[in-house]
Amino acid sequence: MAKTKREILKENLLNAAEERIRTQGLAALRARDVTKDAGCALGSLYNAYEDLDLLVLAVNSRTLARLHTSLQQASASTEVPEERVLALALAYLEFGTANPNLWAALFDHHMPPDVSVPDWHLDEHALLIAEVVKPLSRITPELDDQALALRARTVFSAVHGIVKLSLEGRFVALDPEALRFELSEFVRQYLRGLRFSDAARRQ
Amino acid sequence: MAKTKREILKENLLNAAEERIRTQGLAALRARDVTKDAGCALGSLYNAYEDLDLLVLAVNSRTLARLHTSLQQASASTEVPEERVLALALAYLEFGTANPNLWAALFDHHMPPDVSVPDWHLDEHALLIAEVVKPLSRITPELDDQALALRARTVFSAVHGIVKLSLEGRFVALDPEALRFELSEFVRQYLRGLRFSDAARRQ
Repeated sequence: MAKTKREILKENLLNAAEERIRTQGLAALRARDVTKDAGCALGSLYNAYEDLDLLVLAVNSRTLARLHTSLQQASASTEVPEERVLALALAYLEFGTANPNLWAALFDHHMPPDVSVPDWHLDEHALLIAEVVKPLSRITPELDDQALALRARTVFSAVHGIVKLSLEGRFVALDPEALRFELSEFVRQYLRGLRFSDAARRQ
Repeated sequence: MAKTKREILKENLLNAAEERIRTQGLAALRARDVTKDAGCALGSLYNAYEDLDLLVLAVNSRTLARLHTSLQQASASTEVPEERVLALALAYLEFGTANPNLWAALFDHHMPPDVSVPDWHLDEHALLIAEVVKPLSRITPELDDQALALRARTVFSAVHGIVKLSLEGRFVALDPEALRFELSEFVRQYLRGLRFSDAARRQ
């Protein structure tokens, strides 16, 4: 079925915004640049996406889908749950390194005060956590679903923090190999402690 | 010695900017609001601080000093190195919870493209890492200074990630007690794995 004019407009705006964020970062995103790049009038953006924030969410949605695919591929690389968690962490680092601005936009973007992030977008973030839940459920089978979701979220956040502060160059600048090593060591040490502590608790 | 007019101006601007960031967040900070609050002309800000970014750094500098004091107090609460790392993590969470906007400004603020963060400010961030280095050096005595600094930075970043994504309400909203529990469990599990892996390596 042929795309409607509105669909074409939305896609052009989405591509233009994605390219602006990718090359210059979210902070530099301006509605007038995006509409100029997309070859449409400024008002068209507000017809197509309601506002610039919803256009950013559409870009983030596309980034999340790509990130999710990367994580799924990493997860499929091994059956050993500890190795899976490690592969997920390294795939996360790799994605952030390869797409620094698009990745940062996932977390640097905030809705205006008193405007909630729509549920469909929260669900897309939750898909990332679900990838961590799978192997973690095999490492800590004694946790119920709620505790497991929290645990997965905590592990995700820790890995995120390591990747984020490194890619932003806070504190010490790290070369990519050193960062990869540090992250691997950290995840391995954590998983060893996790297995050990939960085994101890079961005895 | 009496303060000069310029010193009084700088302090008024600093107090005004801090109060704006504390109550409304960094993203809402405007030069004209700060100068209005401080009771001076817009141009005075640029005489006193060069630009708004340097005023933000001055606010962040004050926040870092308070955070550093909190971490030092937490560190002094126990001699056991594992307990110290845990106390530091919990003090970090507490500080972020009590001062969400000032704390977020430490990490959300970016200098304009091509402008570096001044060394004196990087050194203030490094003081936080140094607090983690102290107990960690006793847990992993085999690491040299450089490896230890990296390790401390990694642990700091992981804790930061857990606190940051929680306080921002990404993914799942957590009540403060559940967050405290998750963070404690995570740090304990990590430290157990760290002790275990380094002991294994030494054998």
